[in-house]
Amino acid sequence: MALSSKTSAEELRAEEKKLNSEYEKLKSCNLSLDMSRGKPAAAQLDLSNGILNMNFPSYINCEGNDVRNYGILTGIKECRQLFADLLGIKADNIIIGGNSSLNLIYDAIARYYMFGKLGSTPWSKLEKVKVLCPVPGYDRHFSICEEFGFEMINIPMNSEGPDMDMVERLVKDDESIKAIICVPLYSNPSGVCYSDEVVERLVSMKAAAEDFTIIWDNAYGVHHVYKERKLADIFVLAEKYGTEDRVLYFFSTSKITFPGSGVALIASGDKAIAEIKKRFGIMTIGYNKINQLATYSFFKSPEGMHEHMRKLGKMLKEKFDVVLTKLDEEFGDSDFLSWEKPDGGYFISVDTLPGCAKETVRLAKECGLILTAAGCAYPYGADPNDSNIRIAPSYPTVEELKKAMEIFCVSVKLASVRMLLNNK
Amino acid sequence: MALSSKTSAEELRAEEKKLNSEYEKLKSCNLSLDMSRGKPAAAQLDLSNGILNMNFPSYINCEGNDVRNYGILTGIKECRQLFADLLGIKADNIIIGGNSSLNLIYDAIARYYMFGKLGSTPWSKLEKVKVLCPVPGYDRHFSICEEFGFEMINIPMNSEGPDMDMVERLVKDDESIKAIICVPLYSNPSGVCYSDEVVERLVSMKAAAEDFTIIWDNAYGVHHVYKERKLADIFVLAEKYGTEDRVLYFFSTSKITFPGSGVALIASGDKAIAEIKKRFGIMTIGYNKINQLATYSFFKSPEGMHEHMRKLGKMLKEKFDVVLTKLDEEFGDSDFLSWEKPDGGYFISVDTLPGCAKETVRLAKECGLILTAAGCAYPYGADPNDSNIRIAPSYPTVEELKKAMEIFCVSVKLASVRMLLNNK
Repeated sequence: MALSSKTSAEELRAEEKKLNSEYEKLKSCNLSLDMSRGKPAAAQLDLSNGILNMNFPSYINCEGNDVRNYGILTGIKECRQLFADLLGIKADNIIIGGNSSLNLIYDAIARYYMFGKLGSTPWSKLEKVKVLCPVPGYDRHFSICEEFGFEMINIPMNSEGPDMDMVERLVKDDESIKAIICVPLYSNPSGVCYSDEVVERLVSMKAAAEDFTIIWDNAYGVHHVYKERKLADIFVLAEKYGTEDRVLYFFSTSKITFPGSGVALIASGDKAIAEIKKRFGIMTIGYNKINQLATYSFFKSPEGMHEHMRKLGKMLKEKFDVVLTKLDEEFGDSDFLSWEKPDGGYFISVDTLPGCAKETVRLAKECGLILTAAGCAYPYGADPNDSNIRIAPSYPTVEELKKAMEIFCVSVKLASVRMLLNNK
Repeated sequence: MALSSKTSAEELRAEEKKLNSEYEKLKSCNLSLDMSRGKPAAAQLDLSNGILNMNFPSYINCEGNDVRNYGILTGIKECRQLFADLLGIKADNIIIGGNSSLNLIYDAIARYYMFGKLGSTPWSKLEKVKVLCPVPGYDRHFSICEEFGFEMINIPMNSEGPDMDMVERLVKDDESIKAIICVPLYSNPSGVCYSDEVVERLVSMKAAAEDFTIIWDNAYGVHHVYKERKLADIFVLAEKYGTEDRVLYFFSTSKITFPGSGVALIASGDKAIAEIKKRFGIMTIGYNKINQLATYSFFKSPEGMHEHMRKLGKMLKEKFDVVLTKLDEEFGDSDFLSWEKPDGGYFISVDTLPGCAKETVRLAKECGLILTAAGCAYPYGADPNDSNIRIAPSYPTVEELKKAMEIFCVSVKLASVRMLLNNK
């Protein structure tokens, strides 16, 4: 019979003994594996090496500009068009900026903090600024909000996206709520995909703050693993309600080509993007256009990128399979751990019994396996149940991952059994 | 006899006629040349194409990290060490960040504006923030200050750098003066090189604001053309006075390799750089390390970079020669135009008779030659004498540049003659 929260104290004590000895055996293997971040494996990176060896036949882009020189603040046209076609955004509403969508998000927030949005009061001048944070979510988003002193409000996620009843209720009356931060497809870490209805409610809802902003971080927009989920086109929906400027859309090739050496973009409605372009014109002379041309030339079309992502998805699937198979084997008939199988993205999000996540991560660490810190998927690192753990299976080899999952599962069981015994 | 402000009205009138016809002849050539920015010529860029075709033997850096993946927020060690050796800065006090030193300057100012410096009040919370601006200076620096609403105070430049008596007098009593912005070697646009004494006075002077900051934009630190001028090592001097944290040092390879596709750095004292690293850790996951490795591998050592810069300097010298020879020929014995021959950098700064710069630029533009806007080297675009014009000779071919200088010289003369006749 499988272990569960209903298991008797006696059985639990017997089990703990067995687990202790398994744990000590695993510890003696002296594994050292860092699975804390969603790092691609070297084999994934190799798929994109062509970008680094373009042997450019020409440095002149489709508009006749030498990409090696100054100019073209908003990004070369062919690259903007590639992303426009890929994501269903007008090319003129896209700025290609730098190597990091996180940096673009930070900068966008910083600009509203310093200067306001389209004539609104700078957020730095307000008594309080609140941001809605669907949870579990991406820790780096929360770190940015914390840096600016924003109050983060947890919004529970369901299988369709954030709880929109709650979002609508909060946003319509409270003008200190300035933003919601979303990873709408294959959400980090839970893999949830926002339904069309959720997307439409986000752009159609009444917002007390005229400068209310949807931070739309579509980081995994083409990262299919088991299924090809489609995300509703937020700008098309926003157009129906005249709220395009409410949306700041972010995307990057960090997890398509090279983390930190790809290209990232920001897009918005006509007015908001015009303001951003003006401020960009003060902030920088322009971004790395050689990389933009290389990226464009490597993919050439959305189909080129999808083909690339199918190869990448296959690699990830192998890793996801290892994790999900092991979880099924070990916890398929136990309530020690629950999880949803994601259709894509980079992560598998699991929930232990309440109060066991931190201890699981600690136990794993003592065994040489570094997991993402427990609680990190919640604002202020505070998981109210201490149950959520993000598994990032991309980086290790399949063999390493198998070993890591052994450690993980024993750690979950040991933490659960001990907690239950303590509470008996 | 050459034209001058002493020329009689009669002679001026005769001269105007001749100049008009010369001007119309030049106009009929239908030249179209944009010399408004210091853009490198394609031949200069070609010198660095090797960076784009590295055929990397390995993507693993000296610390054993795959530069294609996440990590190493502050830049790969070999690249930091290269710049450390080149500029006399400790490698640990350098962060390699992105492609644009202007962007790093903007961000650094934004951070102090939003969060303060080492515990000081955020500049956004202060009634007034003033910045000292040696003039003539770099227009993009002034645009940043204007964006943040800082009051800019003109500091006249002499052949040693900014007027340090004035700087010291202002800074010691006024705690709303938070910064001075300097391009210390081959200053943009005048080519002035800061003397050792000026550098030492900057780091040793008493400042009322505890968070007073020297923005040290060493954009032309290795851009020798006629002479190899040396800049005093500001951190070594600052150490004597314990003011290393006062200095924010910026450098980039924009005008060494590719504008917008090079690498840029920020450096400061131990405390200030630690704070910046912490804030960088929230702002971004990291910068393009593949480009850092390519840049390092291309140059390998400071000597490698100096060798490259000698080739580049030779190309620039050819252009500078055209400008300076023509100016000598046309204005060597006239007071219509004055200038200093720079030893390096990217620009030649000239002064017309008072009130003639805007008209000169307008006349040149009508002839198809776009010069940098008159006044741009002054805060708010306001040249008190309307006399300064920045010549950026790098981009055109020698033939184009010769034609451009013809237009320029006739435009100066025509503007001067007309102004003098108006005032007779």
